[in-house]
Amino acid sequence: MRLSILLRDGFTALDIVGGYEVLANLPGMDVEFVAPRAGLVWADTRRLALHAWRSYAEAESTDILYVPGGPGVTPGLDDAELMATITRLHATSTWTVGICNGVEWLGKAGVISGKEVTTNWACRDKVAAYGATVNHRRYHRDGKIITGAGVSASIDASLFLAGLLAGEDVARTLQLGIEYYPEPPFGNGTPDEAPAMAQAIVRQFEAAGPERIQALAARIPAGAAH
Amino acid sequence: MRLSILLRDGFTALDIVGGYEVLANLPGMDVEFVAPRAGLVWADTRRLALHAWRSYAEAESTDILYVPGGPGVTPGLDDAELMATITRLHATSTWTVGICNGVEWLGKAGVISGKEVTTNWACRDKVAAYGATVNHRRYHRDGKIITGAGVSASIDASLFLAGLLAGEDVARTLQLGIEYYPEPPFGNGTPDEAPAMAQAIVRQFEAAGPERIQALAARIPAGAAH
Repeated sequence: MRLSILLRDGFTALDIVGGYEVLANLPGMDVEFVAPRAGLVWADTRRLALHAWRSYAEAESTDILYVPGGPGVTPGLDDAELMATITRLHATSTWTVGICNGVEWLGKAGVISGKEVTTNWACRDKVAAYGATVNHRRYHRDGKIITGAGVSASIDASLFLAGLLAGEDVARTLQLGIEYYPEPPFGNGTPDEAPAMAQAIVRQFEAAGPERIQALAARIPAGAAH
Repeated sequence: MRLSILLRDGFTALDIVGGYEVLANLPGMDVEFVAPRAGLVWADTRRLALHAWRSYAEAESTDILYVPGGPGVTPGLDDAELMATITRLHATSTWTVGICNGVEWLGKAGVISGKEVTTNWACRDKVAAYGATVNHRRYHRDGKIITGAGVSASIDASLFLAGLLAGEDVARTLQLGIEYYPEPPFGNGTPDEAPAMAQAIVRQFEAAGPERIQALAARIPAGAAH
């Protein structure tokens, strides 16, 4: 079974790696990273880069389509090749996973209209505008579409999917493998219960994301560009 | 402030990205990935690769030394240059972070003898053999050394460190930013409470890690080696 994780400039790394670390360790799972072109793709910090195996154009089908979020999501909405790739891969995927504001990409690609989904708490309105019903859950399944809330919810959503794919015993073993028995040092409320000041700061930070990553691009040393 | 994350062949990606995603977003934090050589370094799955900015030899000092784990830890214990790098960077670091069985590297490098640490549940004995007292906590601080339990505990340990570095309000904002309000689908016990069968499978999987990644190495296509 193949897991295809879409990369595009400005992704948030934990949106990807939280799910990857669970799903890649399922027995028989093969993982690929797919990007506009093979080679390095830079995260929103411009300090972490993942290697993509092949290009969007080379990806004809997959079993699990995995769409992460990050500040690169907003500029990606105008990327016709990306949208066509999501539509094409979703058409025959067994499962389609959207994490965080990556669910906006699923919306723009036309695959969640009339569906119920979750997403990052800060972009619920944007996702709803694509005709989806947005709930406030950490992860949600509607048919073959699994959605996760923000960033670290990729772990919970992927453990849930692992349970569907391989049964609860295997999923529990994967949970032990990544020692996912969280103890957040500052409590475990919901995003909606977070302090108003923290909410305001994060909203502002996320709204400025596309400009922020644009400004950071110059920090990539020339020698590091493969 | 600089965060230097050590990479070596066969790391577990979530050991790194869980902490990176928290610490890299601290105001004023600069992140670098340091490896035997600049370029791609492959994770334990051989399907994910991170880009390293510079070599161990080029890393003279840092503010936060971050040492992740994975199946590559056991072969890394015999890597004299890696051990010298850990000893050298730890000598003047403000903080030294060890995650999962990466704490074994701290042990071999001689920096946790007489200290109290936590680590992956499956390698407590190995870490204790380096003269450390091993507890069963998710994260622990002893002086400037912060240790985390397995893999996803990198998130909790790094949020704890973020609180020490920037105060609880900032750390709570980072927690909201990564939406870390976990809901593990299969409960939230401790590793010691996991089913015996799951424990046995994970122990076997981890014990076979060095051989597994060796066997997987051949899957890297020649064209992907930068």
